[in-house]
Amino acid sequence: MLDYEGSGMSVMEMTHRSKTFLEIIREAERLLRELMNVPLNYKILFLQGGATLQFSAVPMNLYRKGKADYIITGQWAKKAADEGARYLEARCVSTSKDKNFTYIPADGPEAFDGDADYCHFTTNNTVYGTRFASLPETRAPLVADMSSCILSEVYDVSKFGLIYAGAQKNIGPAGLTVVIVREDLIGNALPSTPLILDYKTHADDESLHNTPPTYAVYIAMLMFRWLKEQGGVAAMQRQNEAKAKLLYDCIDGSSFYESHIAPRDRSLMNILFFTRSEELDKKFVKEATAEGLVSLGGYRTVGGMRASVYNAMPYEGVEKLVGFMKDFEAKNSR
Amino acid sequence: MLDYEGSGMSVMEMTHRSKTFLEIIREAERLLRELMNVPLNYKILFLQGGATLQFSAVPMNLYRKGKADYIITGQWAKKAADEGARYLEARCVSTSKDKNFTYIPADGPEAFDGDADYCHFTTNNTVYGTRFASLPETRAPLVADMSSCILSEVYDVSKFGLIYAGAQKNIGPAGLTVVIVREDLIGNALPSTPLILDYKTHADDESLHNTPPTYAVYIAMLMFRWLKEQGGVAAMQRQNEAKAKLLYDCIDGSSFYESHIAPRDRSLMNILFFTRSEELDKKFVKEATAEGLVSLGGYRTVGGMRASVYNAMPYEGVEKLVGFMKDFEAKNSR
Repeated sequence: MLDYEGSGMSVMEMTHRSKTFLEIIREAERLLRELMNVPLNYKILFLQGGATLQFSAVPMNLYRKGKADYIITGQWAKKAADEGARYLEARCVSTSKDKNFTYIPADGPEAFDGDADYCHFTTNNTVYGTRFASLPETRAPLVADMSSCILSEVYDVSKFGLIYAGAQKNIGPAGLTVVIVREDLIGNALPSTPLILDYKTHADDESLHNTPPTYAVYIAMLMFRWLKEQGGVAAMQRQNEAKAKLLYDCIDGSSFYESHIAPRDRSLMNILFFTRSEELDKKFVKEATAEGLVSLGGYRTVGGMRASVYNAMPYEGVEKLVGFMKDFEAKNSR
Repeated sequence: MLDYEGSGMSVMEMTHRSKTFLEIIREAERLLRELMNVPLNYKILFLQGGATLQFSAVPMNLYRKGKADYIITGQWAKKAADEGARYLEARCVSTSKDKNFTYIPADGPEAFDGDADYCHFTTNNTVYGTRFASLPETRAPLVADMSSCILSEVYDVSKFGLIYAGAQKNIGPAGLTVVIVREDLIGNALPSTPLILDYKTHADDESLHNTPPTYAVYIAMLMFRWLKEQGGVAAMQRQNEAKAKLLYDCIDGSSFYESHIAPRDRSLMNILFFTRSEELDKKFVKEATAEGLVSLGGYRTVGGMRASVYNAMPYEGVEKLVGFMKDFEAKNSR
């Protein structure tokens, strides 16, 4: 941490124009391209501002005819659509709001505008515990917020126009945003687009137009190396599926816990479950915390329990949780 | 680094909604307010995107009548003005371009439009080694890019409308941007302003509207604590003045080295000097690097040498450099 490869400096102190840092950011780009099998006609950009800034950057960069489709499967998708509506006609073409976002809508191609500038969706919904098991059937370029599932399962990048993700779930520290964008979508931003939000600015300059979040890029690069050593995204997906199966089997095999999500739409990353009462849910969270099983409370508007089992969570961590769930059930069943 | 105060987690892993992180960001804000004596009618925001993103955010947020004054004292000031010109009439009211930015213009109030939406300037010019020793004489709100000198000397914040700074010089890791803005300038952003660029979004939500660069905020907080222990900004200024005096005295006292900057306008942070030839400059940089005195090459468009003596550089570091300069002079004088 304090002396990077004999330079006498931490990466935190280095100038982003140094040869050392250039090697780091290029290795990060190369590894991510390899891990996600990103085709050569896509640029990989390392940016700042979080996924929320992309809610604005996407419409500002992809505006052509001024219409876009949004699929609303949760509050982040809703926020993206609300921000999109400030720049173009952001049509909500598909939503699961009617059942409090407990499923992924299965609309066919007729629901979408194939001539829309793009179709935006959120691949994994952290708050509601759902996930798109297949891609929306539209001819418009797919734009995906993958903040909470990037690198957790295999996606065919060539099916997307643009993928973006805040780094803080599966990549590295908060403060880094990854954008993967097809080259033909770059270079036609709205005139009011801030220079730093125009993908062309960064694509032309290898993400080095201004100082990138250097230390976060470094940690991301280390994480990509680690992922590769683990066998890459396919191996990670197998592990995530095994972790999720362990938990969902425990939930489905019990009459004490329940999931509100249809099996096909269940998230691999954020696994929600409930007991029969709010009171018991609270007791569960409290006792689990005392056992070192932290951050299990559901999102404040949803309640219940939420196990966030991102790539960094080992299988053993989920086993420990399942063990606790069985004990808790035994002690608290009527 | 790996276990913050018994939480079992690194700050890098923590959610920004955790009580622990809230305490960190609030302490950072409190310390910075104390260190810079920021009045209560100013908000302190911890943002992302670097100073370059503020080149856009400033005009988008401060647009009122659609005119702003810019003082061009270097390439960063120029970039800020170019970006400003995309949103409003950005008038270059004052510049030192005629002498390659080797001085700070001393224009009186008549040069400025007192009714401009704001007057933008760069307090310290890293590339050219100049610094504003006094503030521009305008009634318009002063907007200062302090990226390379924040916390290096005492400024009266109440004289400014807005101060912004990328963190990577004097505060902490790249990826954090500090904005200090007078409250009456918040809340009237242009309609096309991305939500994340609207100061109101962050002011209303204590910089926690979306995930902030948590680890960078933590390092900044530690740096603020350290600065306070050192005696605060006044003590830091005394040390910076002493460091700069040592270097400039060495330059001025020699017929071998020269400075192109008038004494009143010289930077305390970036000290430029030249020998009589480019060849000798290159030899200086090469031999200094071999002695562990790194990053002394001047900016590529300026040449010569540049000693960047930010807060983190101790007096002893400058003594070592001056010792090397004297040796080099002795060996290479005709």
